[in-house]
Amino acid sequence: MKAKVSIIMGSTSDLPVMEKAAKILNDLKVPFEINALSAHRTPEEVEVFAKGAYDRGIKVVIAGAGMAAHLPGVISAMTPIPVIGVPINATLDGMDALLSIAQMPPGIPVATVGINAAMNAGILASQIIAVGDKALQQSLISFKESLKSKIVKANEELSNLKYDFKTN
Amino acid sequence: MKAKVSIIMGSTSDLPVMEKAAKILNDLKVPFEINALSAHRTPEEVEVFAKGAYDRGIKVVIAGAGMAAHLPGVISAMTPIPVIGVPINATLDGMDALLSIAQMPPGIPVATVGINAAMNAGILASQIIAVGDKALQQSLISFKESLKSKIVKANEELSNLKYDFKTN
Amino acid sequence: MKAKVSIIMGSTSDLPVMEKAAKILNDLKVPFEINALSAHRTPEEVEVFAKGAYDRGIKVVIAGAGMAAHLPGVISAMTPIPVIGVPINATLDGMDALLSIAQMPPGIPVATVGINAAMNAGILASQIIAVGDKALQQSLISFKESLKSKIVKANEELSNLKYDFKTN
Amino acid sequence: MKAKVSIIMGSTSDLPVMEKAAKILNDLKVPFEINALSAHRTPEEVEVFAKGAYDRGIKVVIAGAGMAAHLPGVISAMTPIPVIGVPINATLDGMDALLSIAQMPPGIPVATVGINAAMNAGILASQIIAVGDKALQQSLISFKESLKSKIVKANEELSNLKYDFKTN
Amino acid sequence: MKAKVSIIMGSTSDLPVMEKAAKILNDLKVPFEINALSAHRTPEEVEVFAKGAYDRGIKVVIAGAGMAAHLPGVISAMTPIPVIGVPINATLDGMDALLSIAQMPPGIPVATVGINAAMNAGILASQIIAVGDKALQQSLISFKESLKSKIVKANEELSNLKYDFKTN
Amino acid sequence: MKAKVSIIMGSTSDLPVMEKAAKILNDLKVPFEINALSAHRTPEEVEVFAKGAYDRGIKVVIAGAGMAAHLPGVISAMTPIPVIGVPINATLDGMDALLSIAQMPPGIPVATVGINAAMNAGILASQIIAVGDKALQQSLISFKESLKSKIVKANEELSNLKYDFKTN
Amino acid sequence: MKAKVSIIMGSTSDLPVMEKAAKILNDLKVPFEINALSAHRTPEEVEVFAKGAYDRGIKVVIAGAGMAAHLPGVISAMTPIPVIGVPINATLDGMDALLSIAQMPPGIPVATVGINAAMNAGILASQIIAVGDKALQQSLISFKESLKSKIVKANEELSNLKYDFKTN
Amino acid sequence: MKAKVSIIMGSTSDLPVMEKAAKILNDLKVPFEINALSAHRTPEEVEVFAKGAYDRGIKVVIAGAGMAAHLPGVISAMTPIPVIGVPINATLDGMDALLSIAQMPPGIPVATVGINAAMNAGILASQIIAVGDKALQQSLISFKESLKSKIVKANEELSNLKYDFKTN
Repeated sequence: MKAKVSIIMGSTSDLPVMEKAAKILNDLKVPFEINALSAHRTPEEVEVFAKGAYDRGIKVVIAGAGMAAHLPGVISAMTPIPVIGVPINATLDGMDALLSIAQMPPGIPVATVGINAAMNAGILASQIIAVGDKALQQSLISFKESLKSKIVKANEELSNLKYDFKTN
Repeated sequence: MKAKVSIIMGSTSDLPVMEKAAKILNDLKVPFEINALSAHRTPEEVEVFAKGAYDRGIKVVIAGAGMAAHLPGVISAMTPIPVIGVPINATLDGMDALLSIAQMPPGIPVATVGINAAMNAGILASQIIAVGDKALQQSLISFKESLKSKIVKANEELSNLKYDFKTN
Repeated sequence: MKAKVSIIMGSTSDLPVMEKAAKILNDLKVPFEINALSAHRTPEEVEVFAKGAYDRGIKVVIAGAGMAAHLPGVISAMTPIPVIGVPINATLDGMDALLSIAQMPPGIPVATVGINAAMNAGILASQIIAVGDKALQQSLISFKESLKSKIVKANEELSNLKYDFKTN
Repeated sequence: MKAKVSIIMGSTSDLPVMEKAAKILNDLKVPFEINALSAHRTPEEVEVFAKGAYDRGIKVVIAGAGMAAHLPGVISAMTPIPVIGVPINATLDGMDALLSIAQMPPGIPVATVGINAAMNAGILASQIIAVGDKALQQSLISFKESLKSKIVKANEELSNLKYDFKTN
Repeated sequence: MKAKVSIIMGSTSDLPVMEKAAKILNDLKVPFEINALSAHRTPEEVEVFAKGAYDRGIKVVIAGAGMAAHLPGVISAMTPIPVIGVPINATLDGMDALLSIAQMPPGIPVATVGINAAMNAGILASQIIAVGDKALQQSLISFKESLKSKIVKANEELSNLKYDFKTN
Repeated sequence: MKAKVSIIMGSTSDLPVMEKAAKILNDLKVPFEINALSAHRTPEEVEVFAKGAYDRGIKVVIAGAGMAAHLPGVISAMTPIPVIGVPINATLDGMDALLSIAQMPPGIPVATVGINAAMNAGILASQIIAVGDKALQQSLISFKESLKSKIVKANEELSNLKYDFKTN
Repeated sequence: MKAKVSIIMGSTSDLPVMEKAAKILNDLKVPFEINALSAHRTPEEVEVFAKGAYDRGIKVVIAGAGMAAHLPGVISAMTPIPVIGVPINATLDGMDALLSIAQMPPGIPVATVGINAAMNAGILASQIIAVGDKALQQSLISFKESLKSKIVKANEELSNLKYDFKTN
Repeated sequence: MKAKVSIIMGSTSDLPVMEKAAKILNDLKVPFEINALSAHRTPEEVEVFAKGAYDRGIKVVIAGAGMAAHLPGVISAMTPIPVIGVPINATLDGMDALLSIAQMPPGIPVATVGINAAMNAGILASQIIAVGDKALQQSLISFKESLKSKIVKANEELSNLKYDFKTN
């Protein structure tokens, strides 16, 4: 089994957030790898990783980072494959990470998801791979359908609320 | 020729920003279509568009919107294909649009690029399609190489600056 | 008894905030219903709800949502009845929800209340219905009067504070 | 003809923004009045206005204000009828006005629209009055339909764009 | 003993913050009163208070409020005596209160102190009264001197820190 | 004639803002002086100024500064007389100056007015002096009355607006 | 042993943050001193300190402060040696301190590090001293190398995560 | 003449800001070089530059960048010499650049100056070099003295303002 998605983080302190990407990829049966890399502590390893990712069969990179979050952008600068950036809330409610990841200069995009939204990063990575993979496309359609069940369950709970002037 | 990328905007006032996506897709020879749709003014048309995009052969949607920018998220809710959101600066320096597009709830990702960064949206769309298209992959590698020429030219200009204590 | 106000939320995790709207409507004897709907997870149900609300006798919709809060705006796009939006603080102190709800484009207003201010949403809904309902108008006048009692009680507490140089 | 909506502003410098409320009310044939009042310069007049509005037949107040925008909240404190607040961008991109209007304490709601969004305030006022006015309800439905024509026109313009790889 | 300073708050929930103003005024032997008033819940009482303050011998008003904090500005509009505003952190880290208090329109100033900075409000009120009161002026000079003792004590603590390369 | 108010600024580029303080003081016949001082460029002169102000008969200092605006706080640290700070919009819409001036630590208040609000600083200074000056108090009452004339004039202008459904 | 770096803070409440600067300097064997000084409470002592620092052999000052953080800028105004400012998060997530320290006017720089980033301040001070100290330069190179070990350890931890579709 | 300071920018569009660093270095007779480099467009050249800077005799790097400004941090990650970051206002008033530069993770500091404050970057670089250069130290002391002349000139201008109640 060869990884199609590579999940990168700068520290295991980011794991509670980033593991949500792993979990959804696993649920969708998309092979992935997880590694720690730091744009600032291991720049050479980042370069080796980014330049080799395509040849190793990686289709999408998911990179999470907090504060002055350079990792997603630095990887994007060194590979033609899509890079998804997950801004992690370490300081300032995550606004510093969001801006450091989203506001990339012309030519080097990062596909930014919401603050701490690693699950959405995993779904987006799957959607990208599904562009050329009908079975995964179908799994995603089923997954989106399944989101409705949460609403069905919510309505059951809400139906139990009792007020004199509540009509349903 | 069938469109692989669909560029959507809510108003032709967004065209000066969004046309940069069209231009780079054209340069990279990625077939695309451009349409106006509004999450708020034509919700039915958005639904028809979003639900039919996959069957029409669209691989990626690029949706630009300003202010309370719901269009990318609303489309993402109704299709399994990846949606790229371009926050457009209409008010508040574009911060309202950035947050309205990036901060999607779990399950419905939008691949957000920087404020007004439609060119990056076009490149990201191409990177996504290139996951299954070696020729486009190669064009993207060439494109990233070409970005260096801007720096070469900048250095030539800087070499002409004259100061007594400038050494280069 | 037919509901005049429809309270909508995207998840039961929003219930502790949104139930304050239910409570004040109940106190003011305004019939209401509560349902879960999601602009992103159940877009079709949102459409059915929004388009049918008027014919079902709903006079005002109160919709609460957090993060990239599209629900109130999406409903407003599909009904002529007034929609009150409650920005819920899920991330960023609720600023993302406030901007996603308030900054609607021309033509599709949402009556936005403060962050987590579902009680005020319930009062505002009652004020709207009271435009054509004298008894409710009177209840609202009594309610506003009753707000003063909190100040009277506060002054009693403050009168018990003892300082050498406090004169009252 | 008796006014049903009262448009209030603190200064004629706000007129270019606030007149959009007048225009849409006029288009929808909703009788309205326009007056200048200031929470800070004419507090007594504000009190007289707010306390008498209901008896004069006013159904909705639209109040625009910039900076530390107290006018909508102060009026809301003194009347049971719904008050719509329009934050006007005078400083800080209008963020000070948005927060000063939206973040009202429990008990005293203001229906806040977007920054400078006086047209939406006019529509919202009409929607509120239409709760008890079928003809106006119908006009609003027609108005919302008419918003689609802007999108139709936008698509015509976009169809004229020429790119080698544009497919539509 | 007649109060020279009047401390106003909208709710006893603000007392833990506002009592710091009382404490420093007491320490400086400046007679004061404390009352609850609300710009929104008891507008008539605010008016009676503001218009009568000067004649009752009040020299300075200290008004604390959170969220859309209108109380200081509304009082300032109705009295010629200086009004000090204390933005209270109830939501948004207190930024809404800071802007709602500081950004007053031309003609109606509020002397704004920092978020939750009621102690500074008490000192500022004393400084204002001391303009015509030499004894209080002297107390303030002594008070400012005493602030240095906190630094002296801090240095004693810091001198106990032990590091091999610490030189003092 | 001896100055009672001292207006300080860091640069003549701040004069267009700060002169509004001079103008209103002049209108209210409050003697004042204007000087340039910089917390960073002339710290010794600031110290001499601040420590001597009281003995020279200065009752209130008005200090304007932009960016990392330290001048008002630094002066307040060295004098017992009240210091009014005017945040000047040089960068970031003036938010940096507002926070640098308002958020003073316990013990050293600065009476902060709105961004660029030098006129309000002049009025506040007059209000402070009027605590012990009945004639000035009367002038301020007249001044506040005169603010109403602007509203009267605004209403005259608004009465000239013509719309079919305008009732006044 | 003579101190080369002087660590300054305004209160021992800042010690938990600022001690990280002491620790890293100690690890790098750079002699340092720690003192409490306040721009507002002990302005004279600040002046004596700043003007004498260079002659006492201090090469770099590290000054931490929160809120309206004037200390680093005020010291920088009175010495030619480099001043590093550490914005401390006391209020507003530290944004007030960051802006009060970073946004210095032309002529008086402060080398600002991240919010609460006293360890980085210590490293930066060492880097500055190492400009003329080869042994310290070497220690810094070793220190930067050592940062990689955290990544190595993180990868070991990540290798223990088990998922069916995890490939590494 | 060998460069001691290396000024780096990502584009000649940054030159109007960054040239102020060149100008002050030239005035202080500190030899410098200017080059264009981009963390995203020329990552290999950045690496070659950063790793070789120390051996080429560079003592300080000044790197300016806008938006998601990674350049200063990326250079700092690959060299032991101090790196000064200049946040350039390209979008969002420069807040994105300020946070992307200042909020560096532990271990990799960037000495951040204010938004667009390249002149201060040049002064700070000189202060760092002056740690081991008495003549430059003296030039800096003279430079700081010269800043006072601007205040002297400002006072001359202010002395020409005429008001009836202006005393100086």
